[in-house]
Amino acid sequence: MDIEIELLPGSEQKDLPSSSNLRFGRHLSDHMFLMDYKADTGWHNARIVPYGDFCLDPASACLHYGQAIFEGLKAYRGQDDKIRLFRAHDNMNRLNYSAWRMCMPQVDKNELLQAIKTLIRMEERWVPKAKGTSLYVRPFMIATEAFLGVRPAREYLLSVILGPVGAYYAEGFNPVKIFVTDKYVRAVSGGVGEAKTAGNYAASLMASEKAKELGFTQVLWLDAAERRYVEEVGTMNIFFLLEDILVTPELSGSILPGITRDSVLRLARDWGLKVEERPIAINEVLEKAKSKALKECFGTGTAAVISPVGALYYKGENFSINGGKTGDLAQRLFDEITGLQYGEREDAYGWIEVI
Amino acid sequence: MDIEIELLPGSEQKDLPSSSNLRFGRHLSDHMFLMDYKADTGWHNARIVPYGDFCLDPASACLHYGQAIFEGLKAYRGQDDKIRLFRAHDNMNRLNYSAWRMCMPQVDKNELLQAIKTLIRMEERWVPKAKGTSLYVRPFMIATEAFLGVRPAREYLLSVILGPVGAYYAEGFNPVKIFVTDKYVRAVSGGVGEAKTAGNYAASLMASEKAKELGFTQVLWLDAAERRYVEEVGTMNIFFLLEDILVTPELSGSILPGITRDSVLRLARDWGLKVEERPIAINEVLEKAKSKALKECFGTGTAAVISPVGALYYKGENFSINGGKTGDLAQRLFDEITGLQYGEREDAYGWIEVI
Repeated sequence: MDIEIELLPGSEQKDLPSSSNLRFGRHLSDHMFLMDYKADTGWHNARIVPYGDFCLDPASACLHYGQAIFEGLKAYRGQDDKIRLFRAHDNMNRLNYSAWRMCMPQVDKNELLQAIKTLIRMEERWVPKAKGTSLYVRPFMIATEAFLGVRPAREYLLSVILGPVGAYYAEGFNPVKIFVTDKYVRAVSGGVGEAKTAGNYAASLMASEKAKELGFTQVLWLDAAERRYVEEVGTMNIFFLLEDILVTPELSGSILPGITRDSVLRLARDWGLKVEERPIAINEVLEKAKSKALKECFGTGTAAVISPVGALYYKGENFSINGGKTGDLAQRLFDEITGLQYGEREDAYGWIEVI
Repeated sequence: MDIEIELLPGSEQKDLPSSSNLRFGRHLSDHMFLMDYKADTGWHNARIVPYGDFCLDPASACLHYGQAIFEGLKAYRGQDDKIRLFRAHDNMNRLNYSAWRMCMPQVDKNELLQAIKTLIRMEERWVPKAKGTSLYVRPFMIATEAFLGVRPAREYLLSVILGPVGAYYAEGFNPVKIFVTDKYVRAVSGGVGEAKTAGNYAASLMASEKAKELGFTQVLWLDAAERRYVEEVGTMNIFFLLEDILVTPELSGSILPGITRDSVLRLARDWGLKVEERPIAINEVLEKAKSKALKECFGTGTAAVISPVGALYYKGENFSINGGKTGDLAQRLFDEITGLQYGEREDAYGWIEVI
């Protein structure tokens, strides 16, 4: 792929935010990657240009019919000043899966990854150095054809934007309190819950807002059909340590196939833990919380890596987990994965790419 | 509401498309309505300006997290040259319902309706005259705040765009063949199926494409939990005439509360038909198709008004309905509703507003 590059004049470059004051998703860098698609010509016009507004026809399909997908990954700067990506190929694969599910065009994942690396190298000064900080990378694709009607669009825009983000945990882990909702559902088998598409996130907002009003950090979602089996927590996958077995919901079609989820499964297996991917009834979880057989509970995702859950609230009852404290396994997984990401641990899996 | 108006110079006005060649959603008029929202100031800056591109920050929430809703209604020009709206207040109510469900701000529905009428009057030359043609009116709201993160946005844009559309039926009714899917689902109780939000339409695309590949016009959706009860057909509500009883799925939370659906229920009741809103198992429908107790089947929506269904295809079997022909009730409802819309029948319900 030939990428045309238009540089922002040095005098117009933004000031970097202080690395002690990075808010997630607020600061965006000086340049962005763009590429256009038309049904008859395919992808074309790959370019890196100064960050600036998109000009979209008001009838653009993405604004009306929701053909929009994205990915999220991070570039990490280690103490050795090298910049690393973590399992970026998996993000490219998932982008193409999401595109397929939403009737959008495939991208050449190697070319897109090359473009992302080129952009990160250009924006190298935007990769923060403080431990726990990183450069968030957001590839996304939107339908831009201007027409009103329900069918797959014939024109798309793919973009990559970047922004420095802070440590998710300013002062170490803080286990969160989670509200189990049996009123709202996020996704359903036969639906698009497996795709990283815009509408899934909009559909989650009301339940999250109601949980926050009640003093909870996030929602735990149950399955749509029976409201009986655990699915995800907020926008993360969820794990339970039941005695000495690490259990997570199987990928049923309504659950996002998280890359951190997959990394946790791989590490846990290699550490000799028993691991199960299977349906988990909320009642099993709560009974085992009562009997203390539930040793740990945590969410996994790119933003937080590991997010310990200290309590579940369900139908008026509060279930404390591990005394509300971070468990040893959650801590070990967090240390291992962030150690890999910052180049401090040996990468036995080929997950890390220095750019 | 004070609306600032910026007129397109007359010399730049677009040529009108010929009314015999109107394709749905392709032609858009010369001006559009816009209004901005910020959490701290509310709605402001109402304006009508020449139709043109939106300038959106690449991090605008609507492009990533799907906070986007819309409405669809039509302005009809009668033989008397008067322009009429049909139940437009109901569209405004549903817009506010969708906004509430998707954690977006409410609009003053009377003020928005005034703005829509002002815009239509300005674009009066765009309202086509041929029977069956109309001016499609698309109000929509999108989240414009520039940030990456899953929470309700604090900035929005509301817009109204217009375009002339052709008769849905060029040569009268043509009953369509429908594929009943038990693999894909559109929406689920506890989800956002009741809201007219962008993601619902993106979620429907793959099933519709697969039905089209197999030679069917659209998909009939079943409920998400059991794949047993009928929900909608394509993007329309669905009705069955079972002997002398008109039956439609009840509004369970996953079904769009269609305005044409409501009009059909009202008319049928007033005509003395027995009407039932209740769960309808697909097996009941197919058994009654076999025994000929299913007299008619049709979809209802703003675009087609009434769309007769001539056959259902389910699990390898084809079920013909009314010999594949349009039924008397479908025809009578179509004639009555379009008669009201074009000012040819007496409006006993207060559904019509001349503007």
